[in-house]
Amino acid sequence: MSRDSALHAAFFAPRSIAVVGASDDETKTAGRPLAYLRRAGYEGAIYPVNPRRDTVLGEKAWPSLQDLPEQVDHAFILTGADAAVEAVAECAARGVKVATVLANGFSEAGAVGQARVDRMLEAAGGTGLRILGPSSLGVVNLHGKMALTANAAFAEEGLPKGNIFVASHSGSMIGALLSRGKSLGVGFAGLVSVGNELDLSLGELCQATLDDPEVGGYLLFLESLRKAEDIRRFASLAHQRGKPIVALKLGRSPQAAELALSHTGALAGEDAVADAFFRDCGIARVETLEGLLGALPLLARTQPASRQAQVGMVTTTGGGAAMVVDQLGVRGITVEEPKQETYDAFKAHGVEVDKGRIVDLTLAGVRPEIMKAALSTMVESKQFDLVVAVVGSSARNHPELAVKPILEVAGRDVPLAVFLVPDAPEALKLLAKEGIPVFRSPEACADVVAAALKRGRPKPQAAAGAALTGAVRNLDEWEAYQVLSALGVMHAPVCRLDKGNVPETLPITYPVVAKVLSPHVLHKTDIGGVVLGIADRDGLQHAAEEIGRRVTQKIPQAAGCDILVQAMVRGLGEALVGYRIDPEVGPIVMVASGGVMTEIYQDRAIRLAPVDLETAREMIDDVRAFKALKGFRGKPAGDLEALAAAVVAMSSLAERPELGIREAEVNPFLILREGDGVVAVDALMQASKIEPKE
Amino acid sequence: MSRDSALHAAFFAPRSIAVVGASDDETKTAGRPLAYLRRAGYEGAIYPVNPRRDTVLGEKAWPSLQDLPEQVDHAFILTGADAAVEAVAECAARGVKVATVLANGFSEAGAVGQARVDRMLEAAGGTGLRILGPSSLGVVNLHGKMALTANAAFAEEGLPKGNIFVASHSGSMIGALLSRGKSLGVGFAGLVSVGNELDLSLGELCQATLDDPEVGGYLLFLESLRKAEDIRRFASLAHQRGKPIVALKLGRSPQAAELALSHTGALAGEDAVADAFFRDCGIARVETLEGLLGALPLLARTQPASRQAQVGMVTTTGGGAAMVVDQLGVRGITVEEPKQETYDAFKAHGVEVDKGRIVDLTLAGVRPEIMKAALSTMVESKQFDLVVAVVGSSARNHPELAVKPILEVAGRDVPLAVFLVPDAPEALKLLAKEGIPVFRSPEACADVVAAALKRGRPKPQAAAGAALTGAVRNLDEWEAYQVLSALGVMHAPVCRLDKGNVPETLPITYPVVAKVLSPHVLHKTDIGGVVLGIADRDGLQHAAEEIGRRVTQKIPQAAGCDILVQAMVRGLGEALVGYRIDPEVGPIVMVASGGVMTEIYQDRAIRLAPVDLETAREMIDDVRAFKALKGFRGKPAGDLEALAAAVVAMSSLAERPELGIREAEVNPFLILREGDGVVAVDALMQASKIEPKE
Repeated sequence: MSRDSALHAAFFAPRSIAVVGASDDETKTAGRPLAYLRRAGYEGAIYPVNPRRDTVLGEKAWPSLQDLPEQVDHAFILTGADAAVEAVAECAARGVKVATVLANGFSEAGAVGQARVDRMLEAAGGTGLRILGPSSLGVVNLHGKMALTANAAFAEEGLPKGNIFVASHSGSMIGALLSRGKSLGVGFAGLVSVGNELDLSLGELCQATLDDPEVGGYLLFLESLRKAEDIRRFASLAHQRGKPIVALKLGRSPQAAELALSHTGALAGEDAVADAFFRDCGIARVETLEGLLGALPLLARTQPASRQAQVGMVTTTGGGAAMVVDQLGVRGITVEEPKQETYDAFKAHGVEVDKGRIVDLTLAGVRPEIMKAALSTMVESKQFDLVVAVVGSSARNHPELAVKPILEVAGRDVPLAVFLVPDAPEALKLLAKEGIPVFRSPEACADVVAAALKRGRPKPQAAAGAALTGAVRNLDEWEAYQVLSALGVMHAPVCRLDKGNVPETLPITYPVVAKVLSPHVLHKTDIGGVVLGIADRDGLQHAAEEIGRRVTQKIPQAAGCDILVQAMVRGLGEALVGYRIDPEVGPIVMVASGGVMTEIYQDRAIRLAPVDLETAREMIDDVRAFKALKGFRGKPAGDLEALAAAVVAMSSLAERPELGIREAEVNPFLILREGDGVVAVDALMQASKIEPKE
Repeated sequence: MSRDSALHAAFFAPRSIAVVGASDDETKTAGRPLAYLRRAGYEGAIYPVNPRRDTVLGEKAWPSLQDLPEQVDHAFILTGADAAVEAVAECAARGVKVATVLANGFSEAGAVGQARVDRMLEAAGGTGLRILGPSSLGVVNLHGKMALTANAAFAEEGLPKGNIFVASHSGSMIGALLSRGKSLGVGFAGLVSVGNELDLSLGELCQATLDDPEVGGYLLFLESLRKAEDIRRFASLAHQRGKPIVALKLGRSPQAAELALSHTGALAGEDAVADAFFRDCGIARVETLEGLLGALPLLARTQPASRQAQVGMVTTTGGGAAMVVDQLGVRGITVEEPKQETYDAFKAHGVEVDKGRIVDLTLAGVRPEIMKAALSTMVESKQFDLVVAVVGSSARNHPELAVKPILEVAGRDVPLAVFLVPDAPEALKLLAKEGIPVFRSPEACADVVAAALKRGRPKPQAAAGAALTGAVRNLDEWEAYQVLSALGVMHAPVCRLDKGNVPETLPITYPVVAKVLSPHVLHKTDIGGVVLGIADRDGLQHAAEEIGRRVTQKIPQAAGCDILVQAMVRGLGEALVGYRIDPEVGPIVMVASGGVMTEIYQDRAIRLAPVDLETAREMIDDVRAFKALKGFRGKPAGDLEALAAAVVAMSSLAERPELGIREAEVNPFLILREGDGVVAVDALMQASKIEPKE
């Protein structure tokens, strides 16, 4: 049995369960799991463990795990934090495979909590016991009739069965998703509250269910990005099996962005990194709660769109459709008018419509056969990546009639989404039951359509660069240019003045810039370590002395440093390109226009490194500021193609561990006219170990 | 009887109704109104008019309006466009007060349609007959049992009565709002489909219902902004009566913004102007459909917030609350942590909570008395403009218990909003029934909270400037500076070279700029009409000749023009301030940072003119680019206070019709160091009539 299937069996389909700290009071948290397991009709063996009682809820209670007649697969520990640590130790001793811990008071609880963490991990270490939680509200397998949870939502009868597997950082949300799913006609195969992921990570747990035939797709509710490598592995395996993933992650709000510093890492901002991560994992990220619940059917029948998505719209009600068009527009997706051939096809099928972005059937009459003809014509036109059907009052007044044409047109792989304008619960359920993507709010509909079309295609694995360790040192600008040259990135012509001595002739032509060159000096300008516009040798001589004097004064260790001389270059614009190894997601590359505005507008594009040329071009398109360099208002166009190449080169640091670069920022690249390239005129780098080739 | 109450009686509470073109087939559009009127139990007289039948739906049909035994208040005309024109003429002849026209084929239908418009208006002209529509699906008065509509949604039994009056550009949406309201426990006093507003405008119709005791607030669904002056008048009267207004307007999507030109009007973009209009009318603008339906109870119990709104949050479930915090953050609203006094008060009331932005009661236990104590403590603390209560699973499992504490705390004017995390229709209805603002999605909750706190306070009336008419002429830069001086706005020192002749000495000091001065030349730079950095008299002489030569070459009429000489000024940054009279909303003022980025990021603030200093400061805060001039990253701060004064001055053009300025743009203002002011260095203006004082 593979590691995954063993884990699957133990945490999701156990043959036997111990409920440690089971209470006799069903209304108490510790009383719920036993009651819910029974109500769900769990067929395995259940062992309530409670040293202080002979029975709980009318069942025999066992004094301790030791006393159990058999080795159990899964123990749900409902005690307080300290008792939970002991219980985990007992589980380890008794060969339990998975222990789910409900208690809080671990990693989040300071020194005391950390001590508990250490003791718990030590107890489990090497015994094969895996821990789910702490702070986990448990696991539910609806097809397996296992409601191993303390979440009150599972007290209900008639839990909505389906093929969605939910993994959530928030325990309470699994209950909310359950009830909301029920009302939307969305069903679940299983739900897990992953808690703090102290041992078992969300990615591991999902991965373990990949071969479960009951699981068709994944719904993730994330408070942050933890153990990203596991999520990435799970995502790429899920993609191979054609099981889509949708995620809602908290932290989109600008408060996070406010923390921005003029530094790649901070500027990137945690949430933007998460965005890049999801894109490169092929995970569709939604923003709305209803979108989260309704996304999977659409993800299953659509592909990520190439650059500019083509969305078509058919409606029986103008006002309702306009709301979706508007919400799509806000998300950067334009509804396209049908081509002439498509209009001809409409005529041929007896569908009479005025021309326009929205195919409005009000004129043609909203009879089912008209809707069917219009929808199938749109779908068969192959003009559209996706077609949205917006259904008006008929969805409420005659649900069966209203959904009929949609059901007839929407085969398994037809990229179709439906928005119901009135409150139409029946039509909603009829469509949902058949796996048709259906939404009751224009915002959720647009949210999911945008997420489906904008998601990326998964990348294989994290890059080797992620492995870098060891002491960090700052490279000086000269060394940084050596690295850029190794990457094939152009920098402005430079030469080096040994201890600041100016030779008779320079290998580069005046006017030049002189800069202090010392690993001790990071912010050259702040200490007067830069002199611009030097016209001749005397000027350079004088500048070199000036710089030497100022530097020695401010940073004694930098005394007698060398001077970097750089040719003056003029560009049409500037760009900032940054690279760093993010602690969560690994190597990332960022491009922005640089300067204060980049920060103020948070206008930059981030991807996991390395990137290919196509992705780099896409990144540059994503940065609004670069519009100004695309021949905007008759201004000359800049060489953005060369910038894309530079982004690719910088991102390739992820594949060049021998260079040992952990962080690199070229700020700025000067962008020359189309065809003339881009030139780095300043660079900052941090390395783990590197022998600069002089 | 006042004009308004007469209109109210005729369109909304008629004693008698004629249904012109009534069909015998209830499933047909023309068959519905009669059937729905009967079903609703309308108590007035109904006269079906149909020349081709003796009866319709079992009732006597009348051959024509002339044959009716009495003069009817309201006629609903269900015929095609041309017959409708005739019917309107008959209505006028028979003294009908309001004719509602269902047909399309008027203003939107080209020349033919326009001809119908003219004939219809001519027929009604001066007879006292008012026309609702065309393209109107009718009017519904739920308390008055009048369902005068062809919208199929009104076929239902048990229409949800309440105190909301709906006015919609989209006829189908009144049906969707009705059914959605029903499921959300939201009820209506009336709904009107205003159609094309050919005669009766949305604003007039709403205004006519202001004194209707059954109407407590207004819900507007707008496809565009039409007859804005009527809406403004209605809004300010509604505000006086404490009847709040919420609006959802289509057209937020960036496609509109794409049309931007570097010109105040176009740059402003229709939707941004609408935003300014709503703010200054005190209308709360929402973005979500659920928010539109759920907004009024919150608007009724909150006030527009001063600059930075303080929002507090109490929850029984962390994950659910975090979603609302995130959605508020995206909308620029931060949830604030309680002050120490508030924490002390919690303790005093036995509410045990960890410190943080969100007051999470999970620890304290979610018993009703705890929730009540926590909520009342938050409300009584007076620290918050608004408190959001986020309720978890209890809302579904024990609705009565869950809503009890909220109902007890939420007196009529308590600024409180509720988000229910699970699907909890019962709790939703219990709260909605009592007028408590309650939401089932975090997006709608945040949408409405933001809209309520960000709405403005209504301004009295449109400014006089709106009245300007007559031929338009472009002012040259010299004349524009005269106007600025009249407004008390500083411009860079200038003098004028008669026919380009340079005097021995200049009243201003070198270096200077020389610019062509001619009403025939709008884009000076494009034709080489500007020379910068002139160091001395010779330079100026030469520049003047150069400019003369180039201008004469390119624009012969401008031959022998004068030259404007301007002192060179340096600033820390630039700003663009624009003023224009918008055809819909009247005078508006805009401020932006100017340059390409303003366009690319659509980063500007717009308000209706005139504005006061406080509003001008608020506008400058709204422009993100100006952050860079607030001592950002240790850079020197610019004189934004002086910029605010300049915005006020420019906006006062709305109160200076004698200056005759229809459009003015200073681009750029140079922003000097704090305390040194701002200086206009270029200006474009259009006037209706103006005698420049030489």
